[in-house]
Amino acid sequence: MAARQQLAPVLRRLRLARTSPNLGRQAALQQSLSRPARCFSNSTPQRFQRTPPAPAAQGKFTSDAYPDIKRDSRFAQLTEEHVAYFRELLGSESAVIDGVTRADAADDIEPFNSDWMRKYRGHCRLVLKPGSTDDVSKILRYCNDKMLAVVPQGGNTGLVGGSVPVFDEIVINMGRMNQILEFDDVSGTLVAEAGCILEVADQFLAGKGYIFPLDLGAKGSCQIGGNVSTNAGGLRLLRYGSLHGTVLGIEAVLADGTVVDDLCKLRKNNTGYDLKQLFIGAEGTIGIITKVSIQCPQRSPAQNVAFFGLESFDQVQLAFREAKGQLSEILSAFELMDEGSQALVRQVTNNKRPLEGQYPFYCLIETSGSNADHDSEKLQAFLEDVMEKGIVVDGTLAQDETQIKSLWAWREGITEALSHLGGTYKYDVSIPLKELYQLVEDTRARVDAAGLLGDTEEFPVRAVVGYGHMGDANLHLNVSTRRFDERVEKVLEPFVYEWIAARQGSISAEHGLGVMKKKFIGYSRNPTMVGLMKNIKTTFDPNGILNPYKYL
Amino acid sequence: MAARQQLAPVLRRLRLARTSPNLGRQAALQQSLSRPARCFSNSTPQRFQRTPPAPAAQGKFTSDAYPDIKRDSRFAQLTEEHVAYFRELLGSESAVIDGVTRADAADDIEPFNSDWMRKYRGHCRLVLKPGSTDDVSKILRYCNDKMLAVVPQGGNTGLVGGSVPVFDEIVINMGRMNQILEFDDVSGTLVAEAGCILEVADQFLAGKGYIFPLDLGAKGSCQIGGNVSTNAGGLRLLRYGSLHGTVLGIEAVLADGTVVDDLCKLRKNNTGYDLKQLFIGAEGTIGIITKVSIQCPQRSPAQNVAFFGLESFDQVQLAFREAKGQLSEILSAFELMDEGSQALVRQVTNNKRPLEGQYPFYCLIETSGSNADHDSEKLQAFLEDVMEKGIVVDGTLAQDETQIKSLWAWREGITEALSHLGGTYKYDVSIPLKELYQLVEDTRARVDAAGLLGDTEEFPVRAVVGYGHMGDANLHLNVSTRRFDERVEKVLEPFVYEWIAARQGSISAEHGLGVMKKKFIGYSRNPTMVGLMKNIKTTFDPNGILNPYKYL
Repeated sequence: MAARQQLAPVLRRLRLARTSPNLGRQAALQQSLSRPARCFSNSTPQRFQRTPPAPAAQGKFTSDAYPDIKRDSRFAQLTEEHVAYFRELLGSESAVIDGVTRADAADDIEPFNSDWMRKYRGHCRLVLKPGSTDDVSKILRYCNDKMLAVVPQGGNTGLVGGSVPVFDEIVINMGRMNQILEFDDVSGTLVAEAGCILEVADQFLAGKGYIFPLDLGAKGSCQIGGNVSTNAGGLRLLRYGSLHGTVLGIEAVLADGTVVDDLCKLRKNNTGYDLKQLFIGAEGTIGIITKVSIQCPQRSPAQNVAFFGLESFDQVQLAFREAKGQLSEILSAFELMDEGSQALVRQVTNNKRPLEGQYPFYCLIETSGSNADHDSEKLQAFLEDVMEKGIVVDGTLAQDETQIKSLWAWREGITEALSHLGGTYKYDVSIPLKELYQLVEDTRARVDAAGLLGDTEEFPVRAVVGYGHMGDANLHLNVSTRRFDERVEKVLEPFVYEWIAARQGSISAEHGLGVMKKKFIGYSRNPTMVGLMKNIKTTFDPNGILNPYKYL
Repeated sequence: MAARQQLAPVLRRLRLARTSPNLGRQAALQQSLSRPARCFSNSTPQRFQRTPPAPAAQGKFTSDAYPDIKRDSRFAQLTEEHVAYFRELLGSESAVIDGVTRADAADDIEPFNSDWMRKYRGHCRLVLKPGSTDDVSKILRYCNDKMLAVVPQGGNTGLVGGSVPVFDEIVINMGRMNQILEFDDVSGTLVAEAGCILEVADQFLAGKGYIFPLDLGAKGSCQIGGNVSTNAGGLRLLRYGSLHGTVLGIEAVLADGTVVDDLCKLRKNNTGYDLKQLFIGAEGTIGIITKVSIQCPQRSPAQNVAFFGLESFDQVQLAFREAKGQLSEILSAFELMDEGSQALVRQVTNNKRPLEGQYPFYCLIETSGSNADHDSEKLQAFLEDVMEKGIVVDGTLAQDETQIKSLWAWREGITEALSHLGGTYKYDVSIPLKELYQLVEDTRARVDAAGLLGDTEEFPVRAVVGYGHMGDANLHLNVSTRRFDERVEKVLEPFVYEWIAARQGSISAEHGLGVMKKKFIGYSRNPTMVGLMKNIKTTFDPNGILNPYKYL
């Protein structure tokens, strides 16, 4: 009872709205700046990358950045005859961007040649925009016969260089195939073309009382075909699970033009190997997804967000365990931030912190449910309980949409804040929960022991911080630097990869392999697995024309 | 407002407990009799099958029932030398049941030769019970070298003959590999050997506040390796999704003895093709699953069950839509029963019906959540709403565990009731929701038009009824007959399969292919898909020693 009495003032504070208009505005601004950052944050072995340059700037060619990658001489060079075939096939002028016969097409082609961060840049001279599955089939059959390599491209919002060419591969851009084809408002099954923008699909579903079971910052640009091809994780995975569970069917075209019609709309169908699963996360290397059928859940009308401080990572784990138990079916996010990451956000934004005190760890909890009163009651009871038990030291509950955004900004603003401070080594990894934060501590200790970490200018490393999707065991390890220093990279790699491999973690939690991580797959997959994957690749794409130089 | 006033007496009734002790006992008895029936109900093309014979009886050999299936002459005949190798390898006497050198082993082998329904029976003469992954690897390497065919076997609770031999295949029974290896009570990740009994795993999890994300009537016998190999659907799919979403990793042994270590414990891991997905539902044809890692949700402390009557299938769809919207995150089952099926249960059990009136359709709704008060409030509000809107005509809410079982008995008792009345043609199918019940109506009309359906003895067909897992679009079409009549079969087949194929439904919602549905796969998968599947089979098992004569 003593504990409960001592708790009272804290709980009152919990129930008080943070009403500082300053906080609201600044945070909202910060949030709008930083929303894409969370999903666009670079993963694993990004080498001293700054924020993206202005669109006008042109990045280094991937072929120069990765001199080990050589053009495969089995692939044919594009000719006028090839272009003529595609022009005849696709009809419309806008469906073929031709830099083969037209010298002035370079500017038109450039957006398809580079990723959004201008980190990868290819030498593509031909972009095709099919309007139908039949178009895709005919394009691929022709390319396979003529040994022309291709790169399937969705919204081009990937982070590992998977959706842009390395050399002169033809870009097959899916943007024209963007229609919502079918929605069953009883079962919640949506069928759409691969080029449908994620946000368009979600907005459509919102009108029906449903929600797309995937959400990410790039939703205004990314396409659901690309989402499925990269097995995007995003913000709703904790609640709705991965695309391997929610995607019911796909239609895809194989390298030889064969259309695989597996556009099942059923939740249960046990008739043979579930082949569609291979295409989920295959990054376009075994076929091009042309249509997707997906199970969509009901949209939750009620949303709550709480933010609290904790004394140790053990307490964070206890809080997560209690949140899962007590909030159970309404828990939709459980995010982790360490003090180091929050101090950097504070330093850059100068925003007032959500809590008065400082703690080694902070968590953000979001609930989504069908009844606002019930959800609030559960969340209040949970917070009272974890505070009474001493798991959580202090906390605050958002009272309205603005405050929800303010609190989220302290999580989503980390990447943006870091980018203002200098180069950052970013590792987006998955590790069994119990050791999730140990990687940050071990890395920090190692950098410190090497004499590279400190508060003054003489030290190249400013901070080693960690944050991420606790609910998905997905950690962002970030090493914030003041300047490039070769010693830092040597201290970090291969240490970080080996550390992850020793714990059976994943070097790519959600962003895939692409060009960037092709050579690192061995840290997360053994040679047997990689061998089997290569067999699959050969089975589906014997000539290797689909997205070469990447993935495996 | 008038509607609300009229509703009042109905709602009072809704809140009243059905206290008849008679109903409770009889229904509980019925329930205990029928619980396995729901999951053991035969699927698709069961030809005039009665309830399982007594254990003493021995069924017909599968090789006689399916004379088209011939023993593959590439496979070697078992010799004493083979047996000696396995005895040397596995050591313990009990790990090798040897009918090759011992004439008196027939009785010991018989339980492994036949499925639980005594519908399939093989000529197996050797049963091996490996104790480790290494055992499995050595067994398979040897079998692959010697061209000895094998059948992986879990709890042997399947319905399509997938887990018993057809000829003299060696049974590799996984029962000895039954250990729970690891549980992370923060993330909810369970790792267990394939032979672990589902109920043992679930009871273990119950002690930790977690639940296995799969439940089915055979849980006391079935093994999680078998569940994963058959992609079992079961009772919790509506809430927790399919095994393709919940299984995080597997360890499996390929035909040549290669161990595929994909025992990932992470929710996010985008490093290459998700190969484990191929093993989920592969029925042991590309490898033997030896270990499983699975994401387990928190156990819900509160459970409610409601049962109500509706005037049309359109109303059923509306009710389902409303249930998903209003009960949303707590909805854990939405079951459908037509009046025909309920009349048969009533006829056989003589139990008092849950509702006073009779309606064309009945639904059973179950909720599971973390807060009993909240859940009851949501369920009450939902029922008031759907009754006020005229979607639901009458309903009752279970007040305690006994009443929950009583209500479930009206759904789960259907299969058992049918089995008391004579032979039944059973089709366990998946159809897009809007047309789910149309199959029952069209089939009934067809049987009626053929002059085969009637209330008196002269008609071979007693009733054409439908029920099933509405939430999963999984229908059980049952044609109850008085006696075998060839005309009935001719009217039903291929009509039912063609009807399903025309609507892109599935001829096997959850039970798999096995021997029974091998030849029907073409109704649910096109030749391109089947061709790709055969490529996969050849890639993983070039000699075809794994579970031959089945699946594809």
